[in-house]
Amino acid sequence: MQNFTYQNTVKIVFGRDTIQQIGAEAAPFGKKALLVYGHGSVKKNGLYDAVVASLQAAGLEFVEYSGVSPNPRLTHAQAGADLAKQENVDLIIALGGGSVIDEAKAIAMGALHDGSVWDFYSGKTPAEKALPLCDVLTVAATGTEMNGGTVITNEETQQKLGLIAPCLMPKVSILDPTATFSLGPKYTAFAGVDIFAHIVEGYITNSDPETPVQDVYAEGLMRTVMEYTSRCVADGADYDARANMMWASTMAWNGLLLAGVENAVYPAHLIGHSMSCLYDTAHGASLSVAMPCWMRKMKGFCKRRLVQFARNVMGVSCRDEETAIEQGITRLEKWYESIGAPITFTQAELPLDSFDRIVGNIAMCAPAWGLGMYTRDFVADLLRPAAR
Amino acid sequence: MQNFTYQNTVKIVFGRDTIQQIGAEAAPFGKKALLVYGHGSVKKNGLYDAVVASLQAAGLEFVEYSGVSPNPRLTHAQAGADLAKQENVDLIIALGGGSVIDEAKAIAMGALHDGSVWDFYSGKTPAEKALPLCDVLTVAATGTEMNGGTVITNEETQQKLGLIAPCLMPKVSILDPTATFSLGPKYTAFAGVDIFAHIVEGYITNSDPETPVQDVYAEGLMRTVMEYTSRCVADGADYDARANMMWASTMAWNGLLLAGVENAVYPAHLIGHSMSCLYDTAHGASLSVAMPCWMRKMKGFCKRRLVQFARNVMGVSCRDEETAIEQGITRLEKWYESIGAPITFTQAELPLDSFDRIVGNIAMCAPAWGLGMYTRDFVADLLRPAAR
Repeated sequence: MQNFTYQNTVKIVFGRDTIQQIGAEAAPFGKKALLVYGHGSVKKNGLYDAVVASLQAAGLEFVEYSGVSPNPRLTHAQAGADLAKQENVDLIIALGGGSVIDEAKAIAMGALHDGSVWDFYSGKTPAEKALPLCDVLTVAATGTEMNGGTVITNEETQQKLGLIAPCLMPKVSILDPTATFSLGPKYTAFAGVDIFAHIVEGYITNSDPETPVQDVYAEGLMRTVMEYTSRCVADGADYDARANMMWASTMAWNGLLLAGVENAVYPAHLIGHSMSCLYDTAHGASLSVAMPCWMRKMKGFCKRRLVQFARNVMGVSCRDEETAIEQGITRLEKWYESIGAPITFTQAELPLDSFDRIVGNIAMCAPAWGLGMYTRDFVADLLRPAAR
Repeated sequence: MQNFTYQNTVKIVFGRDTIQQIGAEAAPFGKKALLVYGHGSVKKNGLYDAVVASLQAAGLEFVEYSGVSPNPRLTHAQAGADLAKQENVDLIIALGGGSVIDEAKAIAMGALHDGSVWDFYSGKTPAEKALPLCDVLTVAATGTEMNGGTVITNEETQQKLGLIAPCLMPKVSILDPTATFSLGPKYTAFAGVDIFAHIVEGYITNSDPETPVQDVYAEGLMRTVMEYTSRCVADGADYDARANMMWASTMAWNGLLLAGVENAVYPAHLIGHSMSCLYDTAHGASLSVAMPCWMRKMKGFCKRRLVQFARNVMGVSCRDEETAIEQGITRLEKWYESIGAPITFTQAELPLDSFDRIVGNIAMCAPAWGLGMYTRDFVADLLRPAAR
């Protein structure tokens, strides 16, 4: 095991009928909040009304800021930060999925910063302070509700970049599985793909040979995510399925799986981010296209871990290691297909002639991800099997 | 999954050569510390010198308080709290295993309380404030380094009682696996038994049928604890074995395995505490005596979970459920024996005529543990197979 420091201060309030606690949980952090949400689906499914009632009951004044997009945009985040300054809010309350919470984190930093919000993502300014953030999670996918991470797309430079900082950890995250009931099967499947990717990429690239505590959890979480995502896709109102998918999602990306591991990196996320940045491909869809290609390319780099993945996660019993790896990847593809997640450009509605542009963007962003070996040629070779 | 709230603010600093960080990590919490440790083994193995050098380098003044016993005593904790008041210390620094840290927590509460330290354990006074506590862990066993729990023995009333409160979470816990190298094979084995018990008791008594996230982690941790404890017993200086045993120990009892589960209780700990309280039996030794008896008694109450335990933890493949359960328990007994942990009164050096007294003490303490069904008759029937 590698040396590490771990501290995660987020308070999780989990379970049925917990949304109405947001007011009381947020009140200790200030008197006036910026309420951030997306394009209004929360007004249709009743979540907005529940949150507003709770804030009012707690005596919290608030200003609204809506319109956050999937793959949230820098310009929108910047305008939110400007509004937060202008309205002099004490805290941010996010109501939404990973995109809303990620942009809320950008706003929370930007509200205390004189320059551009992008300064934090470009690395120009270290993220050291932010307004307190509380959230009500409506999509179990990114794990942002229990970490200090945020990802933003800069439309101008065509970069989708992220950062991680302790000051961006939410103070309180309300995880009510019923808040995810209205997410349809397609995006529920994409969410499951994302959760799975958060676990499997670090698991396969971890180069420390003795991390059993992290491994058993990663393996168990992956099996859980596959089973429970399938259940959620089949029945969106299955409470136990939603609850376990939600908790698995939070645990997948709260730092625990990475504490003590070595060299864990996220190349499938790098690849997927370029697809999303250029063609607005759904994050999960981009990952299911990228993942099997990436795993096959990794046969020459992470063979031992790919065998372990095939055996302990995908239940492959075949003795021959090469065959076991291929069977593991094939089983993963079959799971993706079973829940409606794409594994080719065509299925993901990406034009085939986008290939070169995507490959170029990946190679451009790779160094910022610590993935310098993902050059244009390397990526083209990796991704070509999906370009059909 | 059940509703739950989870927040664990402890900062973990894990790894080789981290002991020397204690001064810098503790310094933000005050200028003068009470340094709590046991009977001086830390002076022989160099840990004391390393800690003192680090405190001095950080400019931290400190007063020493040594002599903490295994199964720490109320009178000693009370005297420590009195000293902390008299010396007007700002924080507590604990150097030791679970007993030292548990007593340090008692002192941290007692230093801010006018009455007896026992008031907190008896339930008379709620634990709401305590001096900040930092620690250097020297035995991986109790998990107290990443939770708000503490257990103290009242010699006068012959009660060993515990409590859990957020204010008792350490601010920083230094987990350097090399600090556990000098723990001999006997107590290393007892430590492994304790870690295993923290996981298995809640796992078997959990009555929620859908907690896969908690289950896969509990099962994986149990397999890890068995494998790595055996390795540590065989070679106390095996760094990776010590590191993984240490991290498994911390993860076993930091609240994660219990978040969302239902009715988890700790009857083997109840039984073991009475043995320790009356006869000073080592905590781990008492647990390996109690555990197989308890599991066999649970066949009538937690059959489904015992089958799951046999299959997913002990690797039993037998189809018949009754046989599978018995095979699982037998394999656990064999593991205990393989590492030198006792499974009978005689092996634990408990006189056979102690049986009635122990049973009576368990029944007396049971209600405070929420285990009212553990009456004298119930416990006598449960424990009799070990009284040989």
